[in-house]
Amino acid sequence: IQESNLQHDAGDKGPYRHFMLKEIHEQPYALRQTLEGRLQGDTVVAEAFGAHSLDILSQVKAVQIIACGTSYHAGMVARYWFEEVVGIPCQVEIASEFRYRKSVVLPDSLLVTISQSGETADTLAALRLAKDLGYMSSLTICNSPGSSLVRESDLAYMMRAGAEIGVASTKAFTVQLVGLLLLALSIGKQRGLDITDIALALRELPGQVEQALLLAPDIEKLAEDFAHKQHALFLGRGSQYPIAMEGALKLKEISYIHAEAYAAGELKHGPLALIDEEMPTIVVAPNNELLEKLKSNMEEVRTRGGQLYVFADADAGVVSEPGISVIPVPHVCNLLAPIVYTIPLQLLSYYVALIKGTDVDQPRNLAKSVTVE
Amino acid sequence: IQESNLQHDAGDKGPYRHFMLKEIHEQPYALRQTLEGRLQGDTVVAEAFGAHSLDILSQVKAVQIIACGTSYHAGMVARYWFEEVVGIPCQVEIASEFRYRKSVVLPDSLLVTISQSGETADTLAALRLAKDLGYMSSLTICNSPGSSLVRESDLAYMMRAGAEIGVASTKAFTVQLVGLLLLALSIGKQRGLDITDIALALRELPGQVEQALLLAPDIEKLAEDFAHKQHALFLGRGSQYPIAMEGALKLKEISYIHAEAYAAGELKHGPLALIDEEMPTIVVAPNNELLEKLKSNMEEVRTRGGQLYVFADADAGVVSEPGISVIPVPHVCNLLAPIVYTIPLQLLSYYVALIKGTDVDQPRNLAKSVTVE
Repeated sequence: IQESNLQHDAGDKGPYRHFMLKEIHEQPYALRQTLEGRLQGDTVVAEAFGAHSLDILSQVKAVQIIACGTSYHAGMVARYWFEEVVGIPCQVEIASEFRYRKSVVLPDSLLVTISQSGETADTLAALRLAKDLGYMSSLTICNSPGSSLVRESDLAYMMRAGAEIGVASTKAFTVQLVGLLLLALSIGKQRGLDITDIALALRELPGQVEQALLLAPDIEKLAEDFAHKQHALFLGRGSQYPIAMEGALKLKEISYIHAEAYAAGELKHGPLALIDEEMPTIVVAPNNELLEKLKSNMEEVRTRGGQLYVFADADAGVVSEPGISVIPVPHVCNLLAPIVYTIPLQLLSYYVALIKGTDVDQPRNLAKSVTVE
Repeated sequence: IQESNLQHDAGDKGPYRHFMLKEIHEQPYALRQTLEGRLQGDTVVAEAFGAHSLDILSQVKAVQIIACGTSYHAGMVARYWFEEVVGIPCQVEIASEFRYRKSVVLPDSLLVTISQSGETADTLAALRLAKDLGYMSSLTICNSPGSSLVRESDLAYMMRAGAEIGVASTKAFTVQLVGLLLLALSIGKQRGLDITDIALALRELPGQVEQALLLAPDIEKLAEDFAHKQHALFLGRGSQYPIAMEGALKLKEISYIHAEAYAAGELKHGPLALIDEEMPTIVVAPNNELLEKLKSNMEEVRTRGGQLYVFADADAGVVSEPGISVIPVPHVCNLLAPIVYTIPLQLLSYYVALIKGTDVDQPRNLAKSVTVE
């Protein structure tokens, strides 16, 4: 059975100036679509992953995720979920690296590929290696029903994000994250994990993303500070580290600012040497057990003359003062925070690009799907 | 038994203008010192890792490497060795990330920490977690005999790199790589691996590093092209990807140029948008099965107006022409190439910093050992 992923408005920007802005704002809808019928009570329905998914997923003892670009960042977030929540080993690797090295396959491993288009050349090549390498089974998280990845994988989670036209991926990323979390919950439940609370929280997610989108006017103002910068540093810890990476990638892709992300704890091991007034630092700071560590990282940046822009939980106790601009983000549970904190970073890259006057939907040198190596 | 790691000339720059340059040039000596007595015929002597190492290492079925900064890059290279050559799973994680997340420990796992000083705060904290987490045993690759990491680990490989004064780590990195390779070979041999050829190649390594150091005058000239740049992109594939990361980190640390490394296959997934004549691209290109892919990545950069600087095997068939400057590197076997290709990147960062007039041995904002979080 193939599902159509076309929406009535695909190919039409509607009231939005760019497809990217439209797609950013479509995220609450896309998240509702991807959850629709997949989460019943405290059960992830088996059909979300394909006909025989229960049989296969009940045997999974390890997960290897393979992806490129933005999808790779989604995989990096999922690793925290698989290891912390489900308790099974999860590795994540860039497809172009994985396919050319001899790796070790853990027993009863599921190979998970992630790709919006389902045609990413390196990811597809990695999948084709999987059976020979000894993977138990393969599953793809994909937005294109008829694509090569879907056809050649044992199982598939159809994202239902709707058509994504902007080259810089936005809604596909947050929907991929939900697909990966549902996969983790499905495997976890069969291993005795109580997913009741997480299932409840997931139902609140589209509304929380709507709330985060209300930050747009504040972020549009903030973007003026970045438009004339050549550099930016993004910092995060734990599952927000890949979100910092994704935020940096967005800024790179459409505003051509050289943005780079670091795990905040690595600051003193090199990147601190770059910090001066020309290198703004963006921090994603949900209110969790890492907050105090993050605050100390922020202080290091500030004492070196760096300007901080902090997306922080409203209850995190971080306040704006000279050298620190705080953008309060509505409270969200720790598990789903990576998804919600993505939104302001997408908006930031969009508004910076708008000021710079780049071709937002078709940034230079990049294509939507990388179907050649 | 404690070994002294002091050399007669520690604390004295000798004929060199900076400790960093001295330490770069000390590498052939340091590599000979670290190999001395540890490799006998085709056997890695058990004492290299401590009194009871054979008992412990014979039981190791998986390796988890924990480190920060430059040492983390050494760990990333070692992962290729453990998985490709030995055939056991190897994960590598930044210490400040590992210690704050709930990770899954594979059965019979050895926790390997890497730190020049042996006092890196996050790495030490990770080691202290190891026993509670269920690691079978712990081993440190360390340059400081009396340090906390050495005292608190079950096994230790003493690097014998001699005192490293320059904040930007150079000889410690290449010596760490040799220690990690000896560890891989020691575990591999007990699993039936024939290490004869690799042992022979390792004996040639100090001489090959001497050859690579002869590139210094060429690289000094090349450095002029970088001194006025604000950005640089480093590309590598496979075990050269971490070397590209280390090259970018060196340039960051001492010349304050915003250098970033990417796995070359990820180029089309974002960083290509940054490429223009202001963003030079440095490529490490040994002559291996990835060369043709790398050449196609290089062409992408060139067609976008980017200037390429390619450290290539003399037999790789890459020649200088408009847009491409090739620096031929003496031929080295694929396994040891990451060590040899490190040398020209260290020299490049040094000579660029020299032109920029930075405080090479004490770059701004950075300390030699990060003993606080």
